[in-house]
Amino acid sequence: MKNPPALEQLIESLRCLPGVGPKSALRMAYHLLQRDRQGASGLANSLQTALQSVGHCELCNNFSEQPVCPLCSSERRETSQLCVVEMPTDLMMLEQTQSYNGMYFVLMGRLSPLDGIGPKEINLDKLIRRAQDGIVKEVILATNYTNEGEATAHYISELLKLRGISVSRIARGLPMGGEIEYVDSGTLSYALQGRRQY
Amino acid sequence: MKNPPALEQLIESLRCLPGVGPKSALRMAYHLLQRDRQGASGLANSLQTALQSVGHCELCNNFSEQPVCPLCSSERRETSQLCVVEMPTDLMMLEQTQSYNGMYFVLMGRLSPLDGIGPKEINLDKLIRRAQDGIVKEVILATNYTNEGEATAHYISELLKLRGISVSRIARGLPMGGEIEYVDSGTLSYALQGRRQY
Repeated sequence: MKNPPALEQLIESLRCLPGVGPKSALRMAYHLLQRDRQGASGLANSLQTALQSVGHCELCNNFSEQPVCPLCSSERRETSQLCVVEMPTDLMMLEQTQSYNGMYFVLMGRLSPLDGIGPKEINLDKLIRRAQDGIVKEVILATNYTNEGEATAHYISELLKLRGISVSRIARGLPMGGEIEYVDSGTLSYALQGRRQY
Repeated sequence: MKNPPALEQLIESLRCLPGVGPKSALRMAYHLLQRDRQGASGLANSLQTALQSVGHCELCNNFSEQPVCPLCSSERRETSQLCVVEMPTDLMMLEQTQSYNGMYFVLMGRLSPLDGIGPKEINLDKLIRRAQDGIVKEVILATNYTNEGEATAHYISELLKLRGISVSRIARGLPMGGEIEYVDSGTLSYALQGRRQY
């Protein structure tokens, strides 16, 4: 006794979602067919629309429905600074600080050889072309301070320095409200090394 | 700075999946658009195919692509017994035991008033019609021994007994390999009450 073929196919297809294994896929398929057919139909349409209309901005590589995204085509941005982030969410967080007005480049990932993500997958060729447009004066690396984010930043900095482009890395130290008693020693050690003249 | 509208729409649509909140939906959408467009397209197709072709068997209420599913149309089943289960997976587990050869009825859920699942959502009208076909002699309630499964079994047994239908409930007791020292006292108490003459 098995599920009907179209249902088995749906269960299999749901497994392309990250973090969804056989049990979750089964639960999702039952839920959609039993309790939320409207949602399932909406999801199918949204997937197709997104696949058709969402591509990447030619300049910043972020998701965009236009060839050049609204942020890159804005005339009020400082074009001499280029901030490199891993994901669109990082870009949004930086925008929320309202303390940066330059351009961005979104890698859409981080170097992670074990997951098969190398320089090509995170569009480093495109980044290097972008950084050599003659207008960008400084590349600010704002990848995460995880092992993979650090490795990515290091790799990019080497590539860019070879081409004579000025590269910087966002600071590491105590977070706002951070207490020395509770912070880990790695962070504290970097906070000491990165001290600034008052 | 927001995501493009088609991407926002996809994130919203993914939230119809059970257990998927805003963060997971965002992660899934990025993954699909960035690393698995083929999977996304396959998922859209599978959803549409399943919505079109998967309905419910007229007899057992299980998912089926035919009006009557292969199990219900089989001529080698014992038609006087009707086993009521919560989900298709329960049916499959029972079939795997190869110790039951009767018919099934799949509720597609359990009574759960807090989740808005009442008698109508678990198709009790259809079950009662099915049990009164004149051929079914015994209804075996094989809902889970959870609180909700128990409440469901109790509710159904009342409905069926009112209509003069013989109802039984699968046994509760020590599992295979179960040791008295380690079993919970509720199970042990039921194992005692449910003792059988040797």
